[in-house]
Amino acid sequence: MHPVEFFEDFEMGTSRVTHARTVTEADIVIHAGHSGDFMPHHTDAEFCKTQPFKKVIAHGTMTFAMAIGLSVSGQPLNPNGMSYGYNKLRYPKPVFAGDTIRVRITVHSKEDHPKKKGYGQVVEVKEVLNQHDEVVMYAEHVLFVKKRNA
Amino acid sequence: MHPVEFFEDFEMGTSRVTHARTVTEADIVIHAGHSGDFMPHHTDAEFCKTQPFKKVIAHGTMTFAMAIGLSVSGQPLNPNGMSYGYNKLRYPKPVFAGDTIRVRITVHSKEDHPKKKGYGQVVEVKEVLNQHDEVVMYAEHVLFVKKRNA
Amino acid sequence: MHPVEFFEDFEMGTSRVTHARTVTEADIVIHAGHSGDFMPHHTDAEFCKTQPFKKVIAHGTMTFAMAIGLSVSGQPLNPNGMSYGYNKLRYPKPVFAGDTIRVRITVHSKEDHPKKKGYGQVVEVKEVLNQHDEVVMYAEHVLFVKKRNA
Amino acid sequence: MHPVEFFEDFEMGTSRVTHARTVTEADIVIHAGHSGDFMPHHTDAEFCKTQPFKKVIAHGTMTFAMAIGLSVSGQPLNPNGMSYGYNKLRYPKPVFAGDTIRVRITVHSKEDHPKKKGYGQVVEVKEVLNQHDEVVMYAEHVLFVKKRNA
Amino acid sequence: MHPVEFFEDFEMGTSRVTHARTVTEADIVIHAGHSGDFMPHHTDAEFCKTQPFKKVIAHGTMTFAMAIGLSVSGQPLNPNGMSYGYNKLRYPKPVFAGDTIRVRITVHSKEDHPKKKGYGQVVEVKEVLNQHDEVVMYAEHVLFVKKRNA
Amino acid sequence: MHPVEFFEDFEMGTSRVTHARTVTEADIVIHAGHSGDFMPHHTDAEFCKTQPFKKVIAHGTMTFAMAIGLSVSGQPLNPNGMSYGYNKLRYPKPVFAGDTIRVRITVHSKEDHPKKKGYGQVVEVKEVLNQHDEVVMYAEHVLFVKKRNA
Repeated sequence: MHPVEFFEDFEMGTSRVTHARTVTEADIVIHAGHSGDFMPHHTDAEFCKTQPFKKVIAHGTMTFAMAIGLSVSGQPLNPNGMSYGYNKLRYPKPVFAGDTIRVRITVHSKEDHPKKKGYGQVVEVKEVLNQHDEVVMYAEHVLFVKKRNA
Repeated sequence: MHPVEFFEDFEMGTSRVTHARTVTEADIVIHAGHSGDFMPHHTDAEFCKTQPFKKVIAHGTMTFAMAIGLSVSGQPLNPNGMSYGYNKLRYPKPVFAGDTIRVRITVHSKEDHPKKKGYGQVVEVKEVLNQHDEVVMYAEHVLFVKKRNA
Repeated sequence: MHPVEFFEDFEMGTSRVTHARTVTEADIVIHAGHSGDFMPHHTDAEFCKTQPFKKVIAHGTMTFAMAIGLSVSGQPLNPNGMSYGYNKLRYPKPVFAGDTIRVRITVHSKEDHPKKKGYGQVVEVKEVLNQHDEVVMYAEHVLFVKKRNA
Repeated sequence: MHPVEFFEDFEMGTSRVTHARTVTEADIVIHAGHSGDFMPHHTDAEFCKTQPFKKVIAHGTMTFAMAIGLSVSGQPLNPNGMSYGYNKLRYPKPVFAGDTIRVRITVHSKEDHPKKKGYGQVVEVKEVLNQHDEVVMYAEHVLFVKKRNA
Repeated sequence: MHPVEFFEDFEMGTSRVTHARTVTEADIVIHAGHSGDFMPHHTDAEFCKTQPFKKVIAHGTMTFAMAIGLSVSGQPLNPNGMSYGYNKLRYPKPVFAGDTIRVRITVHSKEDHPKKKGYGQVVEVKEVLNQHDEVVMYAEHVLFVKKRNA
Repeated sequence: MHPVEFFEDFEMGTSRVTHARTVTEADIVIHAGHSGDFMPHHTDAEFCKTQPFKKVIAHGTMTFAMAIGLSVSGQPLNPNGMSYGYNKLRYPKPVFAGDTIRVRITVHSKEDHPKKKGYGQVVEVKEVLNQHDEVVMYAEHVLFVKKRNA
């Protein structure tokens, strides 16, 4: 299989699933210190006992960072593509310590780049799934990719 | 000053700026290990010497996590608001080790919640600025907030 | 409420309580590596089973560091005050992984600075409380603070 | 040399010096996240440029934690002694990234325990020295130690 | 290219080179705390100034851990192979903060497993190279691998 | 007891046992990020449930790093010895979070250095034992040591 490299290589609707990773209490502790986000949902177990979920919730920013980490792991660098950013980052369900997450990446849309000739814009949907196959994060990743025959 | 708590408390166009934080080489190393994103832009100084920026670039996911950390630091928990997610996450300029970042948070739009009576939807723009006042990250944060007189 | 900034602003006996944070096994592991203190009370669960408390105990230096972290979080920098040091740092009870700690800060004494005209010396007592409202750390923090009308 | 174990083994005025350790930027970053203390003296290089020392200063709580780590490293556990706490913790000079610190531990005073028969109270002074032999931290460590012939 | 999975798939003398990673001061600090190895070659910059290399040297155990990390990154799990251990782990040259390392993995020997029918023993040489193409670590990794037609 | 310093000081068959350390989930998480080794045996709890051991296994490279850390902790630097490398690194049994490990170090062989006059070669066996006294790691550490009367 040759790597997906040029705009033409992205096929609408195709998807791949990354390997998985278990989120741990240690990850949440490290993320709190790394990001400086010590909100009680993430670091105060007594507060969390009074809340609907009863336990500490992983930071959304951590799930996002791990999702990108899982997505790029083992992937070759694509010299013909660059990340433009993300649209619609959503967290439909919480992630807890002990959950095992993986990412399903789907080619969601393709179109010519509005301004840059020889380039296309690809949107990949990145869905983070937990061990119950529930979507816990949804993001639309916008890529600018060179056309092969530009 | 009473805290911004209910939908009515958000005033269009007002903004606040957080305290600042210097991004370090250690942060980038910790983020690579924490996220599992060891792409060469972030962890291979020799590769980076061959690239336009000549040096290692901070992960976009780290800038995002630190931006949220700066935004919530010292803020009271708002029991009447909840984060729905983000729109349009963009990275107009790179962040390097040694850069000092802070976040400017602006009330960008307000409207009634499309479905949930008694609630409004607020979009706050979070712009990460570096020490040269350049915008290095732009995000639209979508909040659902209770109305005071719901 | 204007910030407590000058010597005159400190009112004897007033106190504030910080937000709370749960101490985790990960924190103790990180602290051992960070400080280099691998004494068996903190890192050897088998040894601890033979001791009165039966389980691993948090480092006193970690409780102290977290107490200061909780104390300064969200507080404005006071350009008119400086920390002189601490007196009587005591640990009346152990802290375990799973405990949730917060800090009660009380203005304990006020007097003119013995030598520096225009300055006063304030002692704030910092008590770390666990989820059972037990005092697990006690410290007297000595501050030198400018007088407003110096 | 037999280990210093009982009250009688502590000789007034004797001292030992620990091995040394270089404080790094990474240590300060890790300590900020671990303690939650992101005050600008420790994490904002731009702010620090406007201050007398011109650069980021290590957290006092980190110097304290490292000092205890250096003090206990390679020392046998003393089953006849217990730490009661500290008096007079002072920071006469700042510690910067790049400084190399070690601890000089001196038997400062010895007296019978005021209440507990068969025990004595020993005060050890722990002085943290930098590479210029300047004292950057001073602490009086109070120990309760069993008497050999109690 | 199908993955190297069975004994028959390993071809004598073939090699692959992993992606690269820059070793940083932060890595050395983290490794010292993680391993508990605070020997002065790794953590005392003043001591190192008196030594032939003049600066802090990375722990051999860290180079080893990173080498394995680089080797497995992006590789599929091989259900037909298992690691038996290593022979001849050598460190011909030091690694310093700022060095960029990668691993060259070469099939060094193949033979029938001495006892286990249907299995072979493969030795892969893992050489860690720095940015000057110098070998800084050499290890012989012993694998037990199922035969395809066992 | 004078320190073991010269070739003559190593006595065949003598051994010492280090202090112990409990391996935690946090250690495994930190090691995965530090080494970049996110293989499912170490980071995917769901995968591990399908495997013979049912739970996450510590990285062999972490056990090795901790073993060296335990071995050198509190030991004086020997100016007359240098590490040449390791032979036969083996992992007879897995290490799990919660296991407490210590190292037994035995003088295994002594001979004249094959080339370097005035030096000898000493092999120390380092065996990592868990709380059930099972050997979980075995390594032969090769040292070059000066002779006292060289």
